Amino acid sequence: MLSRFEVLHELLSDELACVDTEIGEILECNHHLLNEAVRHLRESGGKRFRPALLLLTARISGASREARIPAAAAVEIMHMATLIHDDIVDNARLRRGRPTVNALWGNNLSILSGDFMFARAFSALAEFFRPEFLVNMSKVVSEMCLGEIHQNFRKERLNVTEEEYLLRIEQKTALFIGECCRLGAMLSGACNSLADRFFDYGRFIGMAFQITDDLLDLGYGGSSGKEVGKDLQQGVLTLPVIHALGGQHGETLRKMLSGDIIPSASHEVLRILELGGSIGYARDMARSFADKAREVLTGLPESPEKRALESACEFVLERHS
Amino acid sequence: MLSRFEVLHELLSDELACVDTEIGEILECNHHLLNEAVRHLRESGGKRFRPALLLLTARISGASREARIPAAAAVEIMHMATLIHDDIVDNARLRRGRPTVNALWGNNLSILSGDFMFARAFSALAEFFRPEFLVNMSKVVSEMCLGEIHQNFRKERLNVTEEEYLLRIEQKTALFIGECCRLGAMLSGACNSLADRFFDYGRFIGMAFQITDDLLDLGYGGSSGKEVGKDLQQGVLTLPVIHALGGQHGETLRKMLSGDIIPSASHEVLRILELGGSIGYARDMARSFADKAREVLTGLPESPEKRALESACEFVLERHS
Repeated sequence: MLSRFEVLHELLSDELACVDTEIGEILECNHHLLNEAVRHLRESGGKRFRPALLLLTARISGASREARIPAAAAVEIMHMATLIHDDIVDNARLRRGRPTVNALWGNNLSILSGDFMFARAFSALAEFFRPEFLVNMSKVVSEMCLGEIHQNFRKERLNVTEEEYLLRIEQKTALFIGECCRLGAMLSGACNSLADRFFDYGRFIGMAFQITDDLLDLGYGGSSGKEVGKDLQQGVLTLPVIHALGGQHGETLRKMLSGDIIPSASHEVLRILELGGSIGYARDMARSFADKAREVLTGLPESPEKRALESACEFVLERHS
Repeated sequence: MLSRFEVLHELLSDELACVDTEIGEILECNHHLLNEAVRHLRESGGKRFRPALLLLTARISGASREARIPAAAAVEIMHMATLIHDDIVDNARLRRGRPTVNALWGNNLSILSGDFMFARAFSALAEFFRPEFLVNMSKVVSEMCLGEIHQNFRKERLNVTEEEYLLRIEQKTALFIGECCRLGAMLSGACNSLADRFFDYGRFIGMAFQITDDLLDLGYGGSSGKEVGKDLQQGVLTLPVIHALGGQHGETLRKMLSGDIIPSASHEVLRILELGGSIGYARDMARSFADKAREVLTGLPESPEKRALESACEFVLERHS
């Protein structure tokens, strides 16, 4: 049986293949190593979640295929660029089960390839589309960087509040997904209210996506294709941990995490998270964001695309990678 | 007596101060470390060469002050962002005589701040101006990255030709300076021929600028505020070295540079460069590009701004930092 995500992809498989070709064309250049790095990234695949959502909102809004393919390619390239730089910052060696660009070719090539990809993606957006797209998109990219900076450079690590966590994942993940959904609608010149609605849809689903991703990092929900326990190892506190720090065993957990050697996703940490219901708490929060995303769609005319957007609200909670 | 560059700056001092304020506003955010890094970069100053040229071509073309200040700020931010990333790639500890961002706060903050600055600069350009500006500018940024990649990731280091060198410095330096000059003209909606003329001016002066910069790296022409001999240390061959490799003492030089330990700007290397007239050769080449830049200005109505652009053709050859 096809998973919900496969159903979503089946509807778009033809267009997603075109998006992949377009990505190759936008990033074409005359440097062998850069080409290899780009090929590696394209072959590593990934879920193509952002371009898929953009294609769906674009189709619902009546945007032409000629507009939606390059727009979807541009946002995926931006996403790829942020991943390359994040993997350096996180010193990640694996992504989607394959070695990262920095693991294969070192940090320097990764920095420059990321910059190159950002620039080419902006260039493609500027060439094809209206300036408003660029204003929104570049603002969101600067928010993503701020989110990453807030996550990685925080003075009092163990005092992160739930509110700060939610703001951070909004900045680093949800706003960009929201913007991809809005862009889909804007391509057709759809009215602002529809565009803003899709933005909200994307932002909510993005929140659910990131909370689920953070659970995957702790080993909940299957294999992420990345190393498990990275967040704690790097002192990044995610929702279940923040919740548990405020709970019955908070003091014990605080002592464990204050140690010089952070036990990453050690057995003891996970036990405290489970005992206090913190895993369930995070799952519920993810579910409630996914529900909000679905509600935003209420009243839109029925279509395979709308159903796909609805099923994406399930997929983000279930995904195993 | 004021140097040529100080004369140029005197004409623009008021506007350059506004550009600096604008840079601060565009980069305003709520993260203390990022703010510190931005303040450090602003205080480190630099020549503000690109915004100065943009302001001059904008004034000649009749662009309003309201348009030229944010445009000049945006290009300077893009330049600052490339410097931050280049300093990581080059592992540079000093720039303009002060510690680099990576030396002070590490590579991770440098990567993310550079991305943040790129995004905010694009955002400012997209907000204020026409999409063509973005297309050109983002293309040029992707060329800069390619230039850096070509420079840093080359298989057969010692076989770089003069042609490849010129292409590389055009990509990494000259096209962007050209684009800044073109942007100045485009702000006023000036005719394309004037904009293209300023692009050529900037491109030529950019070539002269980079060749002179490469001479500074070898210790010729005063202190650059950076460490001397960095290029050779990193296996980056610049014009004098490429010239000398093809000259009478080429084989000796090749052997010296093939060693495991590259003697950087050691006495012996410099002696070979001087003996074979390679320093003079590079100086002449820089001079000839500066002359080409000046020629492009022929026929433009006389004005303080035109004279400043002309004096910039001397400044790029003389500069001591």
